[in-house]
Amino acid sequence: MTSTFTRADGRALDEMRPVKITRGFTSNPAGSVLVEFGNTRVMCTASVEVGVPRFKKDSGEGWLTAEYAMLPSATHERMPRESMKGKVKGRTHEISRLIGRSLRAAIDLRELGENTINIDCDVLQADGGTRTASITGAYVALADAIAVLKARGVVPGNPLLPPVAAVSVGLIDGHVCLDLPYEEDSRAEVDMNVVMTESGQFVEVQGTAEHGTFTREQMNAFLDTAEKGLYSLIAAQKAALELPL
Amino acid sequence: MTSTFTRADGRALDEMRPVKITRGFTSNPAGSVLVEFGNTRVMCTASVEVGVPRFKKDSGEGWLTAEYAMLPSATHERMPRESMKGKVKGRTHEISRLIGRSLRAAIDLRELGENTINIDCDVLQADGGTRTASITGAYVALADAIAVLKARGVVPGNPLLPPVAAVSVGLIDGHVCLDLPYEEDSRAEVDMNVVMTESGQFVEVQGTAEHGTFTREQMNAFLDTAEKGLYSLIAAQKAALELPL
Amino acid sequence: MTSTFTRADGRALDEMRPVKITRGFTSNPAGSVLVEFGNTRVMCTASVEVGVPRFKKDSGEGWLTAEYAMLPSATHERMPRESMKGKVKGRTHEISRLIGRSLRAAIDLRELGENTINIDCDVLQADGGTRTASITGAYVALADAIAVLKARGVVPGNPLLPPVAAVSVGLIDGHVCLDLPYEEDSRAEVDMNVVMTESGQFVEVQGTAEHGTFTREQMNAFLDTAEKGLYSLIAAQKAALELPL
Amino acid sequence: MTSTFTRADGRALDEMRPVKITRGFTSNPAGSVLVEFGNTRVMCTASVEVGVPRFKKDSGEGWLTAEYAMLPSATHERMPRESMKGKVKGRTHEISRLIGRSLRAAIDLRELGENTINIDCDVLQADGGTRTASITGAYVALADAIAVLKARGVVPGNPLLPPVAAVSVGLIDGHVCLDLPYEEDSRAEVDMNVVMTESGQFVEVQGTAEHGTFTREQMNAFLDTAEKGLYSLIAAQKAALELPL
Amino acid sequence: MTSTFTRADGRALDEMRPVKITRGFTSNPAGSVLVEFGNTRVMCTASVEVGVPRFKKDSGEGWLTAEYAMLPSATHERMPRESMKGKVKGRTHEISRLIGRSLRAAIDLRELGENTINIDCDVLQADGGTRTASITGAYVALADAIAVLKARGVVPGNPLLPPVAAVSVGLIDGHVCLDLPYEEDSRAEVDMNVVMTESGQFVEVQGTAEHGTFTREQMNAFLDTAEKGLYSLIAAQKAALELPL
Amino acid sequence: MTSTFTRADGRALDEMRPVKITRGFTSNPAGSVLVEFGNTRVMCTASVEVGVPRFKKDSGEGWLTAEYAMLPSATHERMPRESMKGKVKGRTHEISRLIGRSLRAAIDLRELGENTINIDCDVLQADGGTRTASITGAYVALADAIAVLKARGVVPGNPLLPPVAAVSVGLIDGHVCLDLPYEEDSRAEVDMNVVMTESGQFVEVQGTAEHGTFTREQMNAFLDTAEKGLYSLIAAQKAALELPL
Repeated sequence: MTSTFTRADGRALDEMRPVKITRGFTSNPAGSVLVEFGNTRVMCTASVEVGVPRFKKDSGEGWLTAEYAMLPSATHERMPRESMKGKVKGRTHEISRLIGRSLRAAIDLRELGENTINIDCDVLQADGGTRTASITGAYVALADAIAVLKARGVVPGNPLLPPVAAVSVGLIDGHVCLDLPYEEDSRAEVDMNVVMTESGQFVEVQGTAEHGTFTREQMNAFLDTAEKGLYSLIAAQKAALELPL
Repeated sequence: MTSTFTRADGRALDEMRPVKITRGFTSNPAGSVLVEFGNTRVMCTASVEVGVPRFKKDSGEGWLTAEYAMLPSATHERMPRESMKGKVKGRTHEISRLIGRSLRAAIDLRELGENTINIDCDVLQADGGTRTASITGAYVALADAIAVLKARGVVPGNPLLPPVAAVSVGLIDGHVCLDLPYEEDSRAEVDMNVVMTESGQFVEVQGTAEHGTFTREQMNAFLDTAEKGLYSLIAAQKAALELPL
Repeated sequence: MTSTFTRADGRALDEMRPVKITRGFTSNPAGSVLVEFGNTRVMCTASVEVGVPRFKKDSGEGWLTAEYAMLPSATHERMPRESMKGKVKGRTHEISRLIGRSLRAAIDLRELGENTINIDCDVLQADGGTRTASITGAYVALADAIAVLKARGVVPGNPLLPPVAAVSVGLIDGHVCLDLPYEEDSRAEVDMNVVMTESGQFVEVQGTAEHGTFTREQMNAFLDTAEKGLYSLIAAQKAALELPL
Repeated sequence: MTSTFTRADGRALDEMRPVKITRGFTSNPAGSVLVEFGNTRVMCTASVEVGVPRFKKDSGEGWLTAEYAMLPSATHERMPRESMKGKVKGRTHEISRLIGRSLRAAIDLRELGENTINIDCDVLQADGGTRTASITGAYVALADAIAVLKARGVVPGNPLLPPVAAVSVGLIDGHVCLDLPYEEDSRAEVDMNVVMTESGQFVEVQGTAEHGTFTREQMNAFLDTAEKGLYSLIAAQKAALELPL
Repeated sequence: MTSTFTRADGRALDEMRPVKITRGFTSNPAGSVLVEFGNTRVMCTASVEVGVPRFKKDSGEGWLTAEYAMLPSATHERMPRESMKGKVKGRTHEISRLIGRSLRAAIDLRELGENTINIDCDVLQADGGTRTASITGAYVALADAIAVLKARGVVPGNPLLPPVAAVSVGLIDGHVCLDLPYEEDSRAEVDMNVVMTESGQFVEVQGTAEHGTFTREQMNAFLDTAEKGLYSLIAAQKAALELPL
Repeated sequence: MTSTFTRADGRALDEMRPVKITRGFTSNPAGSVLVEFGNTRVMCTASVEVGVPRFKKDSGEGWLTAEYAMLPSATHERMPRESMKGKVKGRTHEISRLIGRSLRAAIDLRELGENTINIDCDVLQADGGTRTASITGAYVALADAIAVLKARGVVPGNPLLPPVAAVSVGLIDGHVCLDLPYEEDSRAEVDMNVVMTESGQFVEVQGTAEHGTFTREQMNAFLDTAEKGLYSLIAAQKAALELPL
C-alpha cells in the first residue's frame, strides 16, 4: 500500500480521522451523543417509548426504528429543508433504513419487552461519513438509553448486545482509503460502507461503484481496510461507555 | 414586586437564566451560533445566497428569510419529525415568520444588494423561550454572515443595523416573570414575547392570554420587565461580537 | 390627533369602517354570521360536534378550534387555492391559531361538556382586517351555536362568556389609524391587532413593525385607539345578538 | 306523469326550485355571481389573468379553467377542509373538470386572445345540485368578466357564446324528478346531470345509476324533463344579464 | 351510415377493435385479467379483503372499490409517475370512481357479506378506451374473485350479477364511430362512454363535447352504436368465463 | 455444499429459477421488456427524452434515471397504492436508486449526448428478487432504446456498455442459496444483492443481515454463488438481444 499518493489531510490510507464521542450531549432523550469523525458532527439520540408499532403488538418483543436527517445548514451549500418541501429525499430514507437495520443488530428485541426505541441522527455538520458516524454514535446512545430503561425497571431482560460500528472505505485514484471526507467521497470511484460487530462479523456491506467497477481483489482490500478502522471505532465506543455519564 | 412567590430555579422574578452565545459553532454557514438560555439550546445559522426571490427581482434590494424547527429529540417527550409527517405545524410556521420579521428589522435590505440571507434556527434542546433565544442568537449569526459578505466584497453597502433581541415574560400565579422555562411557560396565565432594538424601540410585541386575560397595567409591567431582560441580552450579543471569531 | 393627514375613505383616524353583522347567514351550521368591516366580508360559522380531540378525552371539558381561509377570488388579484397546492400557507396557520385562542377566551370549556366547536372563518371579500373581522363575527356565531346546544340540552352548563372582539390599528405616515383597509395596511409602518373582552381586558396584543420600529409611547397610543374601536365593536355584537334570529 | 307521488317541498315533478342569480356579489373578481337553486347557494366568480398555461403558449388562443369547492360548513354535517387534509377529494376534481369543460363550450378561445379565465365555484350552502348551480351561475360571471375584458380593450374579438346551463334530473321511487335537493339526491335510483346550450344542443350528459340501472325509455324521459328545466334556467341567465350591473 | 369516411385502421364505423380477455394473467389476486381492445392493454385484478370500510361497518353488506392508473410508460410520450409527484390527477380520480360505480352494478353487496373487493386497473399500454376496457375486463376479474370467495366458503350468498361492459363512441368529422383509438379520440368532437348490463340497461352514460356540442338525434345514434358494441363485449366476457381457469 | 437441506421448489442451492426475457413487450417505449425470474415478473421499459436535468445542462453528457414500483396487486396481500397514499415508501426509493446506479454502469453518458433515458421497472407479480430481475431486464430494454436512438441518428456515439445483471443470494438455515423466492427471502438470515458486469467486475454489493450477522468466509461464499448466477443471467441477456425484435 506504499505509494506517492497523499491525502489532503495528510492521513495514511488506512487511518481514521480523529474520532470523538461525547455522551450526555443533551438531557431530554434517554441517550444523547455527539459523535465526531473529523469535521463531521452528528447528534445521535435514543428515545424510549412504551408500546410497539402495530405489527409487533402482542409479540412480547420490542422494536427499534431510526431517522436520519441533515440540518439545512450542515452542508457547504445550504440545502432546502425537507419538512418545508413536504418530501423526504430517497437518500434520507435509504440512510434511515440502514441505521435502523444496523442498530437492530445491537439489540435483542425479545429482551426489550414491548418498548420502542427511536434513534434520531441529526447531522449538525457534514464532511463525509455521516451515515457511518451516525451508526457508531447511535450505538452509544442506545447503550445509555438501555441503561436508563433498566434503571427504571421497565426492561425485563438484558437487551443490549456488543458494539456495532460503521466505517466507509473508498477507491481514490486507485488507492483504497479509509473514512472518506466529503472532498474524497465526491470523487471516489468506489464507495463502501461496512457495519461490523465487535466479534468481526458483518451486519451490512454496501459497496457501490458510481464511476467504474471493482474487482473481487479490491473488494477484499476494502474489507481489510474497513476492519482495521472498525476495531478502532469499537474501542472508542467502549472507552466512551466506560466513563461515568 | 416583593412576594412569597419563588421560582423553581431560584431566580428573581426579573432575572434572566444564564445566557451563553458561542460563535463559530459550525463551519459551513457564513454565520453559525449556539445560543443558550438556561437549558434551551438553539443552533442559529445565517447562510448566504446570491440572488433574491422572484418578488424582489430587479429591485436592487436583498432579502432575508428564516426557518425554525425543533429536532425531534429536543423536547421532553420525543416529537414526530415534521419532514416524515409531510406537514409543518402551524406553530412552526408562526415562529419562522416571527424570526424572519424580527431579523429584517436588523438589516437594511437596500444595502445588502440582490443577495438572500437564510436564517436557520434548529432547536437542539428545548426548555422554553426557544423563539426568543432563536432571534437573539440569529442576530449574532447574521452579523458574522454580513462580515463574511463584506470581506468577499459582494455587499455594496453596510447592511447590518444595531442589535435586535427577544425575550419572553409571563404571568405565573399573578406574578410577572422574565424568561420562562418550559415548566413555567406551560402554566402561565399570560405569555408575552417582546422583540426590541438596542435603542429601546419595539419590533414585535406578542401577548397572549391562553388562560384568562390581562389588564393595561399588567401589559405595562410585562414591558418594563421585558425591557430589563432585553438590555442584558443586547449587552451579551455585543460582548460576543467583540470577541475574535 | 388633529393633522392635515386624511384617509382615502375620509374617515377620522380613530373611526371604524361601517360594521355589519348578519346572523343566520346560512342554515346548516349551528351558528352562521356574515360580518362586514367596510368591504371586508367574512362568513363565520360555528359547528358543533359531539366528543373532543384525543388530548381532551375524559377531561369532562370541551374544546374549540378554528380554521381561517381566503376564497381564491377574495383578493384583488386571485390567489391560488391552498387545497390545490396541497400546502397551507404560514399566514393561514397563524391566523387560524389566533382566532382559536381568541374565541377560547369567550367560552368556559368546563361548562361545555365533552363537545367540540369548530369555528370556520371564510373570507368572501378581503379589504384588510380579515382576521379582526373574523374574531368579531365568530363570537356572534359562537353565541348562536351555544344557544342551539343549550336548546338541545346537550350542554350541561352555561359556557358562553362575555363578548370578545378584535380590531387592527396601524401607523401610517406617523399617524395612528384605526381599522386599516388593504390600501393602508400594505403601507403601514406598524400594524397591531388587539383582541379585548367587554370588560376591557386583553386577550391578545400583536404588534409588528414590518418597516421601522415603534416606541413605548406609540404602543400606548395604539392601545388607546384600539380600545375605542373595540368598545364600538362589542356594542355591535351585543346589538346583533339582541335581535331575534 | 300524474301520480300519487309527492315531493317533500310540494313541487311538481318537472318543476325547478326557485332560482335566483345575483350579479356583482363581490367586487374584486371581474365577474362575481351568487346563484341559488332553492337552499343551494354558490358563489361563482370569473377572474382574468394575462397569459396562458404552457400548453397554450404562442397558440394565439386563450384558456378557461375552473375550480369547485365546498366550504366546510356548507353541508349539514361539517366536512373537513381539503386544504388542511392536504388532499383534494376525487369528487371535487370530477366536478371542477365538469365545470371547466361546460364553460369552455360557452367561449370561443380564439377570440379571447392569450388570456386565461379562472372560474371559482365555492359552495356556501349545499342542498343538492351544487354542480349544476355552479355551471349555471358561472356562465353569468363569465359574461360579466368578458364585458370587463372588452371594456379594458384587452380582448381582440367577441369570445362570449350563447348561454350554457346545467340541471339535474333523477329517478325517485320510479318517478323522473327535476332539480333534486339533497334529500332526494341521496336516495335517487338514477342521477343525471345535463349541460345544454341555448339552442338545445348538449354539452355534457352524465347519467349514473348508483342503485339499479335505467332503460333507454327512462333516458329519454330524463332528457325531456331536463330540457324543460334548462330552458327556464337559460331564461333566468338572460334576464339577469339584461339588468344593469 | 354509408359514407366516404374511412378509419385509419380500416374498421367499419360500428366495428370494435379486436378484443381479447386473458384470465389468470397473474396469480396473487383472486381474479386477474389482461384485457385488450386493439393496442390498449389493461391488467384488471380483483383482490379480496375481510372486513369493510368504516361507513359500512355492521351493515351486513360488503363493499367494492376501484383504482385506475396508467403505468408511466403506457403512453406514447412517457408520463410522470403520480406517486413521485405526490399528486393524483383529476382524470385518474374521475376514472377510478367511474369504474367503482360501474362494477358495483355487477354485484349484490348484501350477498357479499362484510367483505371488500378492491379492483385495480393498471394500464400497461394505452391506445384509447382505457376506461372502457378496464370496466369490461374488471367484470371478468370480479367473477373469478367471487368464485374464489365462494370456494373458500366466506361469501354467504350469490353476489355476482350478470355482466356489465363499457364502450366508447365518438363523433369524428361528423361520423359516429365505435371504440375510438387514441388517434381518433384526441380529435373527436364528442366522446361518449356507455356502461350497460347484459339486459340492455344503462349503468352510466357520459357524453362530453370537448369541441362543439351534440344534438338529441346524435345522442340516439351514439347509444345505438354503443349498444351494438356492448352486446359483443358481453358475449366476449361470457365466452372467457366459460373457459376453464 | 452437500447437505440434507432441500429447497421448496427442488432447486440446487446454486441454481437459478427459470429466467425468461421477452423483448418488445409493449410498443410505446423505445425499449420494453418483460423479465421473469420464476414467478417474479417485471415490466422494464426505457423511454427516451431529449434534454437533460438541470445539473447536467451544457455538460455535453446525457443522464439515466430509474423508477421502480410494485403494482398494488403484485404481492400476495394487496398493498396500498403509493400514489393514493401520497407517499413513496423508503424501500421504493432505495430500489429506484439502486437500479439507476446499476444501469448507469452500463452506459457511457458522454457518448449519449444531452439525452435522458428513463428506466421504469413495474412489478406485475412479486415473488422475491424483484430488484435483481428489474436490473437484469432493464439492461435489455436499455439496449433496445439505444438502438432506437442510434437508428434515429440522435445519439452521437456508442453509449451502450457490456451487460450488467443482478442476482440475490441468501443464507437459509445456514445454507448459501441463489436467487431467493419470497418464501425464502422472508426467512433468510442474510440477504445479499450483487450487480456485476460481463467481465466479472462488481457494480454494487449489498449484503444485509436482518437476523444475525455473517462472517468473511460466508461473504466469500455469497460472492462465489452469485457470480455463477450472474454469468448465466448475462448469457440470457445476450441471447435475448441476438434475436430479431
